[in-house]
Amino acid sequence: MRLTRQTNYAVRILMYCAANKDRLSRIPEIAAAYSVSELFLFKILQPLVEARLVETVRGRNGGVRLGRPAETINLFDVVRVTEDNFAMAECFENDAVECPLVDSCGLNAALREALGAFFEVLARHSIADLAAARVDLRGVLGIEPIEMKAAS
Amino acid sequence: MRLTRQTNYAVRILMYCAANKDRLSRIPEIAAAYSVSELFLFKILQPLVEARLVETVRGRNGGVRLGRPAETINLFDVVRVTEDNFAMAECFENDAVECPLVDSCGLNAALREALGAFFEVLARHSIADLAAARVDLRGVLGIEPIEMKAAS
Repeated sequence: MRLTRQTNYAVRILMYCAANKDRLSRIPEIAAAYSVSELFLFKILQPLVEARLVETVRGRNGGVRLGRPAETINLFDVVRVTEDNFAMAECFENDAVECPLVDSCGLNAALREALGAFFEVLARHSIADLAAARVDLRGVLGIEPIEMKAAS
Repeated sequence: MRLTRQTNYAVRILMYCAANKDRLSRIPEIAAAYSVSELFLFKILQPLVEARLVETVRGRNGGVRLGRPAETINLFDVVRVTEDNFAMAECFENDAVECPLVDSCGLNAALREALGAFFEVLARHSIADLAAARVDLRGVLGIEPIEMKAAS
């Protein structure tokens, strides 16, 4: 039982954007921070953009940013977008069900209840919490320091 | 995110044994009931026997039975034996960790908490509950009726 790599990196992208909230984040920067390919990140971004968890700004100075405040994006929001299969057992799916218990198996109900408890905990953790848990998130991700504006 | 096929069938084997608790269950019978191969069932049985959730009785009239009462075997007991990887994200594993957040990522803690909630629910459901949830479990599984002993 494990989350997909997509979910894992989706959370990391969102954490990067949260840590870099004052400006647009560029894909090459995020890819470098996590040592993954830009193509891989683009694939993960697509469903996040469709779900409006991330916004893209096109152009030479373009990039990505969170679609809404990090405080309002929780881990369940992310998992719902990135995990496409919450059929926890083969018998939850419609095809090729051979099990004679399928119509009224208690396992099904128990697993759904357990999954509900799993989601409830995820829903209590926001991207803002995750970003805050890491004291020096900007430094670790190699995000450049915010320049102080010269007094005018 | 899903449970392995091993877990799914491990629960089904235990349910079969629970429904058939007055006698030994034979592998060919269980395989026929669930339309899977005997070889597949033997593979799943091995860790269940090692964990003493199931006992085997050898010989011509041999078979398998629960290692302890169905009321005392819960779904967490089963999952603990059959799911060998509860590293929910790549970054929980020791090898090939490239993520700069690995030492103090809040995602790790949040997922562990969520997994704990998942396990707690599983621990509240026993094999006896699952077997009882299905009214006519013996009939559905094709277990022959218990013969009434002739009065002596």
